Amino acid sequence: MTWLIRFGVSMEKQLLERFDRILQKEGYTSRSEAIRDLIRKNIVEGEWEHGETVAGSIMLVYNHHQRELLEKIMDIQHDFHDVIISTQHVHMDEDNCLEIIVVKGKVEKIKNIYNALTALKGVKHTSLSRATTGKKI
Amino acid sequence: MTWLIRFGVSMEKQLLERFDRILQKEGYTSRSEAIRDLIRKNIVEGEWEHGETVAGSIMLVYNHHQRELLEKIMDIQHDFHDVIISTQHVHMDEDNCLEIIVVKGKVEKIKNIYNALTALKGVKHTSLSRATTGKKI
Amino acid sequence: MTWLIRFGVSMEKQLLERFDRILQKEGYTSRSEAIRDLIRKNIVEGEWEHGETVAGSIMLVYNHHQRELLEKIMDIQHDFHDVIISTQHVHMDEDNCLEIIVVKGKVEKIKNIYNALTALKGVKHTSLSRATTGKKI
Amino acid sequence: MTWLIRFGVSMEKQLLERFDRILQKEGYTSRSEAIRDLIRKNIVEGEWEHGETVAGSIMLVYNHHQRELLEKIMDIQHDFHDVIISTQHVHMDEDNCLEIIVVKGKVEKIKNIYNALTALKGVKHTSLSRATTGKKI
Repeated sequence: MTWLIRFGVSMEKQLLERFDRILQKEGYTSRSEAIRDLIRKNIVEGEWEHGETVAGSIMLVYNHHQRELLEKIMDIQHDFHDVIISTQHVHMDEDNCLEIIVVKGKVEKIKNIYNALTALKGVKHTSLSRATTGKKI
Repeated sequence: MTWLIRFGVSMEKQLLERFDRILQKEGYTSRSEAIRDLIRKNIVEGEWEHGETVAGSIMLVYNHHQRELLEKIMDIQHDFHDVIISTQHVHMDEDNCLEIIVVKGKVEKIKNIYNALTALKGVKHTSLSRATTGKKI
Repeated sequence: MTWLIRFGVSMEKQLLERFDRILQKEGYTSRSEAIRDLIRKNIVEGEWEHGETVAGSIMLVYNHHQRELLEKIMDIQHDFHDVIISTQHVHMDEDNCLEIIVVKGKVEKIKNIYNALTALKGVKHTSLSRATTGKKI
Repeated sequence: MTWLIRFGVSMEKQLLERFDRILQKEGYTSRSEAIRDLIRKNIVEGEWEHGETVAGSIMLVYNHHQRELLEKIMDIQHDFHDVIISTQHVHMDEDNCLEIIVVKGKVEKIKNIYNALTALKGVKHTSLSRATTGKKI
């Protein structure tokens, strides 16, 4: 069972008004929810900075015509199978594939697989996206 | 057919040695590939900054027990179906889901769906990951 | 005169406890102040994203032995004198200078001067740091 | 004496053309210089990630009317005098000051002073800007 706590926050009137205008523009219906989101974002950044257990995703854009690239991508994924949850594949056009690998584990290990995939010839772009396991936030 | 061009780059000896050491550590076997990666990363950042047509992904971590949240997430995705390519869903634990939405379209529209999903109550964390369609790079 | 408003925020007990632990570690003595900081950070990011009038700084590390570099840096600064407030110069070692230029103006113009300085030969590193005029936050 | 090395880089024609167009727009007159800049940026990011000795700056925007704030900012700076090189102060308007502190030292210590200044009541915005001592790049 989740236990809610309510507490008071004081703020300059003009700061609060400016924040409320942003929330309205972004579609928030609750000021508390927006503040919780800022706090959770701050926590997740800390999880990554301090090398904790996190979730995230690695996105690759690559040319599948590159010789032996598919095998190399598959090999690396098997080397790191214990941090990989699943993958999703999109055929962008005749040449380009986009693949997303959902990962969960220690930050250091996730950065290692990210580097290994980035260094492959034929992989045009990689990005590492930081999320959280959602536990305790 | 891809047409390769070869050109010369000059660099201070100690800068090049330091770069080479990083490449070795990150697993690169080709200096050209590492330089192409830096250039492509620079191009992709520009595509996002200038609001071009891009590919990317939106990652959500949410509590699926939150009342009506699944319906709201589904509704928003249908409103933006023309920029969504596919989604992937992971059951993190009893409470938390991780969902990744692959998107392709104008930067502005992608930011709109990102904001709409972020503002939902029960969505604990969102992150927007920047990639490219891979065309022309 | 600043007008303070007090309002209530509700939050899951474990989220609040985790936030409080971070605040203690970072040296905050007031939860309200930490939340105001998160909100102001969010506002400042928006000012930059939406191209408003901002304050910031451009940091350069350069080799002052590079022929004509000092003249070029000076020329560019004069071209943009209306967005430059002041500069600060540090002699890092025999070769390297670090210079910080405080800027205030429209985001686009600040990015233009940043690009112009970055492109100079002999300028080894530049970074653009985002702040705010402080008005209305 | 700096020792220059020249080496060859191969690249797809359309990638190189796209890169050249960006360089022209940003004001670069030399492709080598642009590539050196990308490499140096990559090295500097690594210096910060691996906790090495770096240079940088901390920018504060604060309300100087806040009771005892000036004393507290001064106290913190003295506690960290061994990583502070110099400071620069700008009077933004009647209420707001912008102060930039040039720092040089281990990443961890720089983050500590950054956190201590950020947590102060009356400090509205802080940003940490990453540069390099310029040695060996």
